[in-house]
Amino acid sequence: MTTAKRDTYTPETLLSVAVRVFNERGYDGTSMEHLSKAAGISKSSIYHHVSGKEELLRRAVSRALDGLFAVLDEPGAGQGRAVERVEYVTRRTVEVLIEELPYVTLLLRVRGNTATERWAMERRREFDHRVADLLKAAVAEGDLRADVDIRLATRLLFGMINSLVEWYRPHTDTAAERQRIAGTVVHLAFDGLRTAG
Amino acid sequence: MTTAKRDTYTPETLLSVAVRVFNERGYDGTSMEHLSKAAGISKSSIYHHVSGKEELLRRAVSRALDGLFAVLDEPGAGQGRAVERVEYVTRRTVEVLIEELPYVTLLLRVRGNTATERWAMERRREFDHRVADLLKAAVAEGDLRADVDIRLATRLLFGMINSLVEWYRPHTDTAAERQRIAGTVVHLAFDGLRTAG
Repeated sequence: MTTAKRDTYTPETLLSVAVRVFNERGYDGTSMEHLSKAAGISKSSIYHHVSGKEELLRRAVSRALDGLFAVLDEPGAGQGRAVERVEYVTRRTVEVLIEELPYVTLLLRVRGNTATERWAMERRREFDHRVADLLKAAVAEGDLRADVDIRLATRLLFGMINSLVEWYRPHTDTAAERQRIAGTVVHLAFDGLRTAG
Repeated sequence: MTTAKRDTYTPETLLSVAVRVFNERGYDGTSMEHLSKAAGISKSSIYHHVSGKEELLRRAVSRALDGLFAVLDEPGAGQGRAVERVEYVTRRTVEVLIEELPYVTLLLRVRGNTATERWAMERRREFDHRVADLLKAAVAEGDLRADVDIRLATRLLFGMINSLVEWYRPHTDTAAERQRIAGTVVHLAFDGLRTAG
């Protein structure tokens, strides 16, 4: 006889189990049965906390999106020249990505098969547009090169940042480590690898 | 009664069908049945050309790897200062990635469940190491910043380049378009987006 674990979950702790399973199996490939097994509680216990797997997905991607959008409201994103603001946003985006690694990983992998996934993709695009607008403003202010296609540069910048979810595995996830990686991304994208002069 | 298409495939043309299906369904999720349906020929006709789906995978990732490694043997990759060589390799890597988009996409998605996948991942790592060695040489020659962690920079550089397989959809795949994108990657990574001075 299998003994189910006593349900001591909150919606929050259940979420972290669900996100792990979604990232391992893909959202489409995850059933309530998989979630129930991974959490060690019955399906009806899960339904006690949430309406189903789409609600878990919505909560998970919301956490990632809230973290990213909050960056745009920080003072550093609103003060000074556009180039300073976009460097700030780039740095903080990397830090949030690492802090919320499983949640942002899931966000970047959703594919648009459900309303929640399409909403998440739409919000992601909105975030990318906000960053592209800052890049454009920095070009207009003469601080970024005018001969670079900003749409292409935005995609490459996010390509670089988002690749972290594929290869970054935190050994020591400290604030210092997050700052070091974020600093390298900013250096590479804005100053380039070449020595000055 | 279903009528199978007459088998007019060569191993080469069959490969392009297989790569499309592998990229759509994932290699693990693709059966000989799927390949047979997509090609419109029977499974035994496919076995006439290849020993099975792993041979198709090996041929496909070999095409991507041969294209990438050939770059390292081009004169531009062997002459001049290390910084010029690594910029050349970066530019040509992007061009090959776009030219061989479905094949490189498949290469970047293999996960290591079979011997062929593990071999492909090993060869990819070898390519990355060759580029990292060039970056290190350019730091030693004083042309690239010594304060950047080269291992991290290599990952970010490939993160940026490899992201192309996720978002780049060629409208007009011309040599000029490939050069434009490759040029932007090189600008961004080596000179940065900031205006000089």
